[in-house]
Amino acid sequence: MTKEHSVSKPDSGAKRTRLSPDERRQQLITLGARMLRERALEDVSISEIAEQAGISRGLLFHYFPTKQDFHLAIVAHANAQLLERTTPDPNLDPFDMLRDSLERYVDYVSENRTSYLALLRGPASASPELVAMVDAHRHAQVDRILSEAPRLVENADRPLLGLAVRGWIAFVEETTLTWLREAPITRDALVDMLVISLPALALSQDPTAALHP
Amino acid sequence: MTKEHSVSKPDSGAKRTRLSPDERRQQLITLGARMLRERALEDVSISEIAEQAGISRGLLFHYFPTKQDFHLAIVAHANAQLLERTTPDPNLDPFDMLRDSLERYVDYVSENRTSYLALLRGPASASPELVAMVDAHRHAQVDRILSEAPRLVENADRPLLGLAVRGWIAFVEETTLTWLREAPITRDALVDMLVISLPALALSQDPTAALHP
Repeated sequence: MTKEHSVSKPDSGAKRTRLSPDERRQQLITLGARMLRERALEDVSISEIAEQAGISRGLLFHYFPTKQDFHLAIVAHANAQLLERTTPDPNLDPFDMLRDSLERYVDYVSENRTSYLALLRGPASASPELVAMVDAHRHAQVDRILSEAPRLVENADRPLLGLAVRGWIAFVEETTLTWLREAPITRDALVDMLVISLPALALSQDPTAALHP
Repeated sequence: MTKEHSVSKPDSGAKRTRLSPDERRQQLITLGARMLRERALEDVSISEIAEQAGISRGLLFHYFPTKQDFHLAIVAHANAQLLERTTPDPNLDPFDMLRDSLERYVDYVSENRTSYLALLRGPASASPELVAMVDAHRHAQVDRILSEAPRLVENADRPLLGLAVRGWIAFVEETTLTWLREAPITRDALVDMLVISLPALALSQDPTAALHP
């Protein structure tokens, strides 16, 4: 990869470090993701990030050709972080596993309230690339749940169960976003509701399905 | 209101009728709503609508100052139509009422597939005015369900039930949109799933709630 040019302005005040291209890329994404904790994606500023990294705007654009590319890289990072944060703990039984994952989900989005609301309902949420990325994230969640489903439901009609789980993800997002905005119930009541809703939806679809806690 | 000017081009071929301002406004919305049955909102063309109505583009903009105003009026019309089409039939018992409404919902969105997908997931779905309008429509649905809820659940925790019903609307939209795109199950299986899911979600939230069919 191309060698970095140093910033021309000598007294910018920011600390400058020579990083490898991979390290620099990672640093910029990390700074962007940190900014995303307090702001909507559309308000993540290229200039501020460049300043924090001690590089020029031009150099940032060397790593990410457009602002949109940079924003997508930040969202990919945040999505991966959320998936990792909500990884099911295989040492727990299915219901505790579900509760544990959902508690971590609710806490993560509470910490990232502004950007989560913006990502799913803000102006940026209409960009086709972002929609595709958020959708891929939902698919990953659905697949993870379905891979655990044999332990939860037997004799399930798979296409029906797949559709119900996809709908459940929308249920979780909508109730959680409403809760973040209006807080009509406590965090624990929200978690209880989310935990109960998955088996309620999945099991109601197949009266012959047996529950295996 | 201002008197209509007639179209200057004499041989446009379209039939011209002198309508009152209200009639003209209604005619344009009806033509727009008809076009919306086959196209996404962003593809509803001002020029084509004006031609169909036999008026100039300029006159259309007299009724709707911007394209966005015209599009919003069409969506308001379509939302009102959907609410009307899914009005619960008070002569039915609660479960049949729910099934009947959901069948009419699924059939309506099947007939308006392209525009429904575009409205909820397309590029137009990001305009703040449209988001507010779609959200108001969802609220109307939630209120209608909650007004029937006393017949379904007793002792319900109202804020919790309100949140669950809001989440259920998202469940219905997501499963129906996925079904419109991928058709993983039959129409009847989808309707069954939607009918079962509401009491499953609502009742699971309150183990002491009694069902009154």
